[in-house]
Order: sequence, then C-alpha cells, then structure tokens
Amino acid sequence: MKNRSLKQAVVLLSGGLDSATVLYLAKAKGYICRCLIFNYGQLHKKEICQAVKIAKAAGCTYKILKIDFPWKGSALLDRKIKIPEKAVRGIPVTYVPSRNIIFLSFAASFAETIGAQAIFVGAHAQDYSGYPDCRPEFFKVFSKMIKSGTCGGFSILAPLLRMNKSQIILAGAKLGVPFELTWSCYRGTKIPCARCDSCYYRAKGFKEAGLVDPLIKK
Amino acid sequence: MKNRSLKQAVVLLSGGLDSATVLYLAKAKGYICRCLIFNYGQLHKKEICQAVKIAKAAGCTYKILKIDFPWKGSALLDRKIKIPEKAVRGIPVTYVPSRNIIFLSFAASFAETIGAQAIFVGAHAQDYSGYPDCRPEFFKVFSKMIKSGTCGGFSILAPLLRMNKSQIILAGAKLGVPFELTWSCYRGTKIPCARCDSCYYRAKGFKEAGLVDPLIKK
Repeated sequence: MKNRSLKQAVVLLSGGLDSATVLYLAKAKGYICRCLIFNYGQLHKKEICQAVKIAKAAGCTYKILKIDFPWKGSALLDRKIKIPEKAVRGIPVTYVPSRNIIFLSFAASFAETIGAQAIFVGAHAQDYSGYPDCRPEFFKVFSKMIKSGTCGGFSILAPLLRMNKSQIILAGAKLGVPFELTWSCYRGTKIPCARCDSCYYRAKGFKEAGLVDPLIKK
Repeated sequence: MKNRSLKQAVVLLSGGLDSATVLYLAKAKGYICRCLIFNYGQLHKKEICQAVKIAKAAGCTYKILKIDFPWKGSALLDRKIKIPEKAVRGIPVTYVPSRNIIFLSFAASFAETIGAQAIFVGAHAQDYSGYPDCRPEFFKVFSKMIKSGTCGGFSILAPLLRMNKSQIILAGAKLGVPFELTWSCYRGTKIPCARCDSCYYRAKGFKEAGLVDPLIKK
C-alpha cells in the first residue's frame, strides 16, 4: 500500500473554508491529496456533507472516520451547552479537548501507511487565540512527537497558521476554492445562523477581503 | 463534569497483562481509575472482553471506544498478513502506525474533560524494541506535546517502561492482578495459540518469574 514514488498528502478536511483552501493549496503544490473527514459526533453534521462535496469538487479521494467523544463537555458535542455568539475571548465552550491532536494522529497513521510526504491542516491565527492545539508552538512539538513515535518520514504543514480569515479568503479565491460548498456555521441549520462566533468570523473575513460570501448572496 | 478534588486517573486497558498490572498499580497508588478500552478493528476481539472483565474485577468504570483504521496495513487488522511466530527483530508486522499516539490522545481528551491528574499506560521495554510509540524518548516528547496542546494539567505515566515481562509479572502477582483474566495472544482463539510472538514473550516471562500462567494451567 505504501508508495513513496507518488507525491501524496493527507489533508484534514472539515467542510469549512480554511481546510478547503488548504486542500486547493496542496493540490496547487502538486500533491495527490487524500482527504480525511471526521464524523466525531459534532451537532453540525452538515459540515461532513460539505466536506465530501469539496473533496469531490477537487477531484480527490476521501475517507470518513467515525470517532467517539463519549465524555462530551463541548458545545459542539452537547446540545445542553449554548453555542457562543459573536467573538469570544479565551478558551470557548466549543473547545473539544485534544480534538486536533486526535485528528492529526489519525492523519499520521494514514500518512505512514500510504507513504505520504505531508499532512496538511487548516489551523490559523484566529483559531489559536482559543484552541491550544492550534498554536504554532503546538505544531512544532507535535511534529517532533510524530518524528519520535512513527516511522513516517512525512511533514506536518499548516500553511495558514500566520494568516487571518480575510487573507485566507483572498488566497482561496485565487486558487478557485468553491466557497459556496464550504460551511462554517456551528449550527447545522439550512442557512448559516449569522450569530455564532464561526459565522461572525466568516462574515468579517469576507467583508475585509472585499468579497461576497456566496452562501449569504444566495 | 471536571472534578479536580478527586485523585482520578485514566488507564489504557488492552486486556493484556501489562495494562492490567498498570491498573492495579494505579489503584494501589490511590487513584480512582477510569479505564479506556479500544475496539479498533483488532482481529483478536477477545482482548476487549477480557479488558472489560479486568476493569470489573478491579471495581473500576470503563468506556469502550470504537475507532477505525480503514487503511489496514498491520497483521493485527488484516487477516491477509501473517502473524509472526516467536520473537521478531525490528518493527514487526503487528505494528499499527500511530496506534499508541491515538490511544493516548483520546485518553488526554478524557483526562482533561474529567479533570484527572494522570494517564497510565502499560508500555514496557519489550515493546519498544519494535514499536516507535512505546520508547521512553517518545513518552517524553508526547508529554511535552500534551502540555502544549491541551489545558489538562495531568501527567502521563508509564511505570513499566524499564521493566521486562518477568518483572511485570512479579509486580502484578504482588498486586493481586487476576492473570487468569488477561489475554496476550494475537490470535483470538479459545486458548492461547502458543506460537505468536506475544504468546512467546508471555510464556518466557512466566518462566523467568518462576510462576505458572493460569491460562496455560487450565
């Protein structure tokens, strides 16, 4: 199954616009991309369907992994916890402990098995104000851990890490990312709620980039 | 759900004698132990049933987490790959890339959610000749990664790391580990196959410890 002669990458695809942009970026760099999509009990299941559509639009293969967080404790997993509105400071209630660590660990297992050269992840500046497993220093030490704990020989790349939302949107627009297929809202409603902090940052990003969000236009 | 006033530990329980010994060790140190058992598609499903029996015998709560390795590539996941017999050198075909990393990452998520002080894992010297994610240097950098990527405040403890199988068996015997409930064989047959490398090391361990394996005696 391992094939080091191909330039392969495992891309973590959430259905949001950040990971979609990273997928198109990896493709533009010449990688054959294998997308990993997680069904982790998130209440906003719509993002899984959108992730599949994005992978198909990009002409890439994908796998959906079902995993469990039976301990809940996050607004993304538990209807009893209220999703915050607009911007929040500190660690938000949408934080799922170790979520990125787990996703990246599965990606490492996949990358090692197929002999991929890279893992791409869409973490960025806005995330790491709140989520400890999105910070630049985390990725540094995670990469070290993976070097020590696998036989992989692949790199972990987070090309959006120093970018804000509007910069990501501008980069995605240049790459032809189908933003109309991306989904950011924490509520899995038919149209974005325009109230949760994820909607807030998306709207702010499009506004600052001087572009119109195709999800809102419709 | 978080309760820092209790002295809680998350214990990775596989059904083998190493993790059972670690569970009894953690209990002896006064921890209230929450066991995590993984159903990861292993062909030797029997170890899951045994892990449940061990948790119950120890009077501890447990959670069984179902996870997927849809990329196979290990003799533990794929019937097409032959399980090695007796001792093997280097990385064995039973190696599942990132398996321990994934298990530990889930344990970290659980530990952070409930406010546990420690994660206990049964990795030991015999493992780390073959598995990169069982080596002492791996645990060091994994702990650093967890400090950086979570808000946990818990330690990762691998108390068997410098012990060989016979030392573990002697320690387990002192702690009253129910060895008759433990399962080491990679083949999920009714009685241990006595041919796979896991059976080989178990038999060697009991012999060197001067004890009789209750699974064999029966």
